[in-house]
Amino acid sequence: MNGVEEIRDILGKEDYTKLKSVIHKYHPVDIAEFFEELSPKESLNLFKILDFEDAIQVLEEVDSDKKYFILTNIEANYASKLLAEMSSDDVADFLGDLKEEEKKQILSLMEESAKLDLKDLLAYDKNTAGGRMTTEYIAFSKDLKAKDVLNKLAELAPDAETIYYLYVVDSEGRLAGVISLRDLILAPEQTPIEDFMKTDVKKVNVMSHQEEVARLIKKYGLLALPVVDDNDVLLGIVTVDDAMMVVEEETTEDILKFSGSDVDEKIDLKQISPWIRAKRRLPWILVAIIGEIFSGRVINGFSATLQTIVALSFFIPVIMDMGGNVGTQSAAIVVRGLATGEIDTASIIKNVLREAAVGIILGIINGILVTAITYFWQGKVLLGLVVGIAMAFNLTLAAALGTFIPLLWHKFGHDPAVASGPFVTTLLDIIGLFVYFSTATWILNL
Amino acid sequence: MNGVEEIRDILGKEDYTKLKSVIHKYHPVDIAEFFEELSPKESLNLFKILDFEDAIQVLEEVDSDKKYFILTNIEANYASKLLAEMSSDDVADFLGDLKEEEKKQILSLMEESAKLDLKDLLAYDKNTAGGRMTTEYIAFSKDLKAKDVLNKLAELAPDAETIYYLYVVDSEGRLAGVISLRDLILAPEQTPIEDFMKTDVKKVNVMSHQEEVARLIKKYGLLALPVVDDNDVLLGIVTVDDAMMVVEEETTEDILKFSGSDVDEKIDLKQISPWIRAKRRLPWILVAIIGEIFSGRVINGFSATLQTIVALSFFIPVIMDMGGNVGTQSAAIVVRGLATGEIDTASIIKNVLREAAVGIILGIINGILVTAITYFWQGKVLLGLVVGIAMAFNLTLAAALGTFIPLLWHKFGHDPAVASGPFVTTLLDIIGLFVYFSTATWILNL
Repeated sequence: MNGVEEIRDILGKEDYTKLKSVIHKYHPVDIAEFFEELSPKESLNLFKILDFEDAIQVLEEVDSDKKYFILTNIEANYASKLLAEMSSDDVADFLGDLKEEEKKQILSLMEESAKLDLKDLLAYDKNTAGGRMTTEYIAFSKDLKAKDVLNKLAELAPDAETIYYLYVVDSEGRLAGVISLRDLILAPEQTPIEDFMKTDVKKVNVMSHQEEVARLIKKYGLLALPVVDDNDVLLGIVTVDDAMMVVEEETTEDILKFSGSDVDEKIDLKQISPWIRAKRRLPWILVAIIGEIFSGRVINGFSATLQTIVALSFFIPVIMDMGGNVGTQSAAIVVRGLATGEIDTASIIKNVLREAAVGIILGIINGILVTAITYFWQGKVLLGLVVGIAMAFNLTLAAALGTFIPLLWHKFGHDPAVASGPFVTTLLDIIGLFVYFSTATWILNL
Repeated sequence: MNGVEEIRDILGKEDYTKLKSVIHKYHPVDIAEFFEELSPKESLNLFKILDFEDAIQVLEEVDSDKKYFILTNIEANYASKLLAEMSSDDVADFLGDLKEEEKKQILSLMEESAKLDLKDLLAYDKNTAGGRMTTEYIAFSKDLKAKDVLNKLAELAPDAETIYYLYVVDSEGRLAGVISLRDLILAPEQTPIEDFMKTDVKKVNVMSHQEEVARLIKKYGLLALPVVDDNDVLLGIVTVDDAMMVVEEETTEDILKFSGSDVDEKIDLKQISPWIRAKRRLPWILVAIIGEIFSGRVINGFSATLQTIVALSFFIPVIMDMGGNVGTQSAAIVVRGLATGEIDTASIIKNVLREAAVGIILGIINGILVTAITYFWQGKVLLGLVVGIAMAFNLTLAAALGTFIPLLWHKFGHDPAVASGPFVTTLLDIIGLFVYFSTATWILNL
């Protein structure tokens, strides 16, 4: 019997004493996972026996539908307390997911002070530093001493997202420095924090994209990154665990876009109907259809050639597929390189030339190979040459275009992953077939 | 003038006083980036003026070649001190990158005690928890009081990778619990740590794959994860910044494998010759060539059909490309879902059926669409039907196989990304063309 089955079993028997002792073994993150599998009624009964601290954490973890269901089905007073203690970024994300009616209902449960905090957070786009930050940070003014700060911590800690970085602000709320809890407890009690705070604070503007937030946290190995407005006023922080979520989300987005799925495609196959999933994947497929009809028209344009030598058609697959393969490899390297910052768009031409060099090498090797294969299969030297030359030319072009298109797309401020998968492949098919049949017409004098 | 140019300029003028004041503005991570651009001689001169603390951090960040160059060109005594203070995991990774001769040379610089620590670390595979962990953690025995621990911290902190999680071990060194610095400073001074330590510690076996380490750190929002042996003896910790590096590495690996590049492909286009890069990308390209020759043989097998109706060849591109597109979309969703844990292999058949349902929907929509396109283009109803029926059948199959192959591959303990890109596309080309020409022969009675 696995965890959730055991809990369902005890819930069925309404043995709440046993349930309390069993649930105590689990981490709130694991308990939140149980909620995914439990029915609404079971979830509610389980939620009611949780400690207040666990309840907050579980609530932060479960998805918005379940959050809404629980909060609107428990005592209003308790819901209000829970909402006040939840991380402000989690509550903001939750409200962002709700319909207008539902949102009003949840807001009506909240205390006025909690609502005020939220109002600002809700104004930021979900994918920005502002949309990701929490307002539960700790900041001090710089004239305090190490001892005073340590003493105040006890009181501030329960509400803070992290106490490992303590920020220092001036009288206008502008970020002046940061002290780590590590430095604080090592500092002599009477030292003013100004003396040991770091003033070169890594920070991010509230409107920055979440990718930039994650990049800085990763690059400098931070536990949290302060978010400031244009005047350097401290507004919130993003913690490293949220940065890891951002990395995961952005990666999923890149891989799915790269494969030509819509951005909103969810991984979890269970939760979405095949109709919606098909609809989301349709756009790029339709683009590809149009593109490949053009490929067909290229062949159509050479149908006289093809009618004379039917064997030319046998090599359409290898010409098409190889161009697509090499182009996709190049595009994948560029998309990933841009994501990790190892490639920049400053030198598009340099990058394209470097990649084209790889394409030439691959083209020559494979050109010779398919010439030989064609000769042994069909016994015709000239046909072999046609396939080989077209292949060499195509792979060079594929490497160059597979690099150029995502870089160009990125330079114009778009997501390079979108332009990479199906678009590059389809374009290379059209060009590749044209090169192939032109080479045939030229060499075979047709 | 950007940062590195300014520094190069000052280095050229040998104005070391100015250099010291300028370099002080930069974070060690940024200084390490300068080293990538500077010549060996410039790097060395810059390194020599760094503070000891900065020097350690910079050394941890620069690549192994530069590390080796610097350590073997500074005073042996200083090198020895630096090596003793660097994180054990960084030193172990560094030694792992060196040739046997170089490794001996570096080891000869090290103090005996530092070498002993390292010997164990070097025994673990690079991609395991053991290969990723550092031995610079802090552990206490459980009978200590909060106050004693706080007092000892000052002495232990300088050598520790993190002091935010303090581990509690029994007399045999087995992991008994964890206390966070947060809980510690909030606890009354006389409380035994046993009273407030958490005993349900998330941990990982030393032989676990690094992906598992990153997954646990992300899932539970941890700052560090303890690494234990089979007897639960604490051996080291992996910190969240290393986990973020793991996520980045694993993602790059997945995307490149998915696009059919070799695992070792490095993103940085500048540092590797096009010959080596071409060689790394060749294996999957050769597999694809063989596969597509089979596709050609399928067409060859139907050359009589093709000779009768040349127009059939016009639709080879759309049939080939669409199958590849849908198959790649499905494979991307599976590969990503397996990486994030949202899909498991327990129910392969369920997942394949769900995905096939999407394929059927896409197949029917696109089948109708290409039937219409074919009819308007070629004016032949039956030809339209052939293309449409083949398309519908192909896309269903593409979705099912694009899901099934990576899941099966994963179930047998292999990396699903490897089997996904070129392999799925090539297989679908062969099957798709066979389905297309068979449908043609059947409907057109050829």
